[in-house]
Amino acid sequence: MNMAMDREGTLKLHRKAKGKIRIDPTVNIRDVNDLAAVYVQGGAFAAEEIVEDRDRVYEYSGKANRMAMICDGTAVLGLGDIGPEAALPVMEGKCLLFRTFGDIDAVPLCIRASDAEEIIQAAKLIAPSFGAIDIEDVSSPDCFTVVERLQTELDIPVLCDDQHGSAVVVYAALTNALKVVGKDLRNVSIVILGAGASGIAVARLLLHAGAGNITVLNRDGILGPGNRGRNFVQEELSHQVNPEGRSGGIADALKGADVLIGLSSGGRVTPEQIGAMNRPSVVFALSMPTPEIAPEEAAAAGVAVFARGISGDFNAMPNLHAYPGITRGLLDVRATGLNMNVLLAAAGAIANTVDERRLSHRLIVPDLFSDEVTPRVAEAVAQSAIAEGLAARPLPPKEVYERTWERLFGNFMASM
Amino acid sequence: MNMAMDREGTLKLHRKAKGKIRIDPTVNIRDVNDLAAVYVQGGAFAAEEIVEDRDRVYEYSGKANRMAMICDGTAVLGLGDIGPEAALPVMEGKCLLFRTFGDIDAVPLCIRASDAEEIIQAAKLIAPSFGAIDIEDVSSPDCFTVVERLQTELDIPVLCDDQHGSAVVVYAALTNALKVVGKDLRNVSIVILGAGASGIAVARLLLHAGAGNITVLNRDGILGPGNRGRNFVQEELSHQVNPEGRSGGIADALKGADVLIGLSSGGRVTPEQIGAMNRPSVVFALSMPTPEIAPEEAAAAGVAVFARGISGDFNAMPNLHAYPGITRGLLDVRATGLNMNVLLAAAGAIANTVDERRLSHRLIVPDLFSDEVTPRVAEAVAQSAIAEGLAARPLPPKEVYERTWERLFGNFMASM
Repeated sequence: MNMAMDREGTLKLHRKAKGKIRIDPTVNIRDVNDLAAVYVQGGAFAAEEIVEDRDRVYEYSGKANRMAMICDGTAVLGLGDIGPEAALPVMEGKCLLFRTFGDIDAVPLCIRASDAEEIIQAAKLIAPSFGAIDIEDVSSPDCFTVVERLQTELDIPVLCDDQHGSAVVVYAALTNALKVVGKDLRNVSIVILGAGASGIAVARLLLHAGAGNITVLNRDGILGPGNRGRNFVQEELSHQVNPEGRSGGIADALKGADVLIGLSSGGRVTPEQIGAMNRPSVVFALSMPTPEIAPEEAAAAGVAVFARGISGDFNAMPNLHAYPGITRGLLDVRATGLNMNVLLAAAGAIANTVDERRLSHRLIVPDLFSDEVTPRVAEAVAQSAIAEGLAARPLPPKEVYERTWERLFGNFMASM
Repeated sequence: MNMAMDREGTLKLHRKAKGKIRIDPTVNIRDVNDLAAVYVQGGAFAAEEIVEDRDRVYEYSGKANRMAMICDGTAVLGLGDIGPEAALPVMEGKCLLFRTFGDIDAVPLCIRASDAEEIIQAAKLIAPSFGAIDIEDVSSPDCFTVVERLQTELDIPVLCDDQHGSAVVVYAALTNALKVVGKDLRNVSIVILGAGASGIAVARLLLHAGAGNITVLNRDGILGPGNRGRNFVQEELSHQVNPEGRSGGIADALKGADVLIGLSSGGRVTPEQIGAMNRPSVVFALSMPTPEIAPEEAAAAGVAVFARGISGDFNAMPNLHAYPGITRGLLDVRATGLNMNVLLAAAGAIANTVDERRLSHRLIVPDLFSDEVTPRVAEAVAQSAIAEGLAARPLPPKEVYERTWERLFGNFMASM
């Protein structure tokens, strides 16, 4: 199937696929004995084992590798609040990526929820069937409320790619970009344009990693006491990053800044504003499909390292580098949760996958189809989860690496 | 895999399978174009179509063939209230059967619910992602509350195999058994032992089909004003089947009865009680794994037509004859619900699959692995749903039959 990326072509693909994922059997049924083994008789035996010790559900069912992807349809890609039905093809696509790039059984659950409480309730109700939960494309600040509550109340990891995936990929790319320009995270001035799920999460992770000077802007300008449109998450963050109460717009923020991380919308930054940054400057224009500033404009304005979302021809920074490996690692050690250190470990693995000798202004992130990223991220996440006391099954990280590699690129499943 | 049906063998199978179903891709991803087609770009195009017309979710996602199997773990097989985790291998087994025997994408959702309201809420929240919902192994009378509420409040069919599947298979088998003994449904005296989900549902369907004389018993005896342990569903039913307020135990009920339908537990009926029935008598001893009375004992007591659950060597009456075809038919015509007439149509299709010339006391239900049952049931259900005004996409029933046959036994999916 060689497909033109036109609208009609992709719509036709969707109509033919009738769902980009499907449920398949792992066991064949040929006669009444097989039938009894998988259902009435065998199912009852397995159930009895779990009654005896609830943890055996990881051994006798698919829970260990199954993830619920929960979306209320309020912040879907660049489309906004489109509702659960319209979100379904997008979630199926993401579940397909979880399968293809992480060998994870991801189930799309687009829900009709009226508020954060209902999302939380849905997740808690269905949690027994799943080894992890991914909160996907839920609008901010609800996604923070939901993830924080669920992380406290559930004993399985609760992910949010919009938060965690973005933060990890940005931190990984920034680590390498700063090496290229010869600057130190602790001393650079970082501007984050956009204070939705990813903007907030990126700021939090960079703070945790030791960044000393971060300015975050929403549509109303720099987050601080004068910012009228700020929500409670932005307010909370502004106390950390802007205790002195700076105010202003993006032009003010960028004057003398070393790094711009754009997580807002297309064309929000001008060449003049970029030109006022402290050279050599780093610009990640991650808004999709249109970046905050076009690559040519950024180059003309003197940017040293430029990166954008998935569509560019160099330094593409998709979350795809992060979420399959993070989830794979968490599932493999039966993590009960995740924290900032786990995310830092994942980012480190992504950054290190680019050989330091090959780092350049056009190569700060690994290739999209690299066969090393996900196994390494899974390994690093497993190691960190064990170190953090979050692993219920502390499988050796090296084994997590090998299993992941085999799952993705080998055909050795039968021997696993 | 040739597997002894011992406990260790089936447990080993479960440990190796690590889930009896898995999520598989229907689309391959080889490069960034494919990636864009299935996720960011293509997913957004599909989403936009659905924003324009919500019904297009059936065209651009897997909703049309996806069913949620919701179980709270309160009435699992013969094991009772074992909780959602222990229910999971059983539900996965049933989802596997839905796939193997109906080509349906069934997702096991074992939920931690504290009452019927929470089950209802879970179902309503996740409904946008699914073309049908199956309420499975929820204890009675909650399962009636849940199914009735959901059938009213959702625009997709809400099934309950414990109710609908059992009722359909019993009515189908009874139709043929009465032909064998030369009696008429309207005139026979029918005793239903067991007033859980299936007992109640069987009684309701038989009433709807024209049965004139039904006695239903729970653990405390005949349902009626003197029955202390009756719940609200049993109370309601007793007004219909026992307005005169009969009382007594199974021995009283069976005196002179033509038909016994056992949906209770093993060994509840004695040869003497069976011997007091009106010959030629019909006995369905459907409790599993141990029937209400052993086949040999029933034969010695003069029973003309005997049938039991799945494990017998003749007249096995598994719900497997019913639910794959019912669900297949409902999905294929995008049914918005189901009713008693749809269930009668399904039962008729099962009964008619046994050629009338071959009917005998040892052959009243089709073979378990018959390749005709499910396509015929799907066809009959589609036809009935259309006639009842329940079909949002009135596909010709003959086409439903052919598609179903091809799905199950052909390899023609690409041309469908």
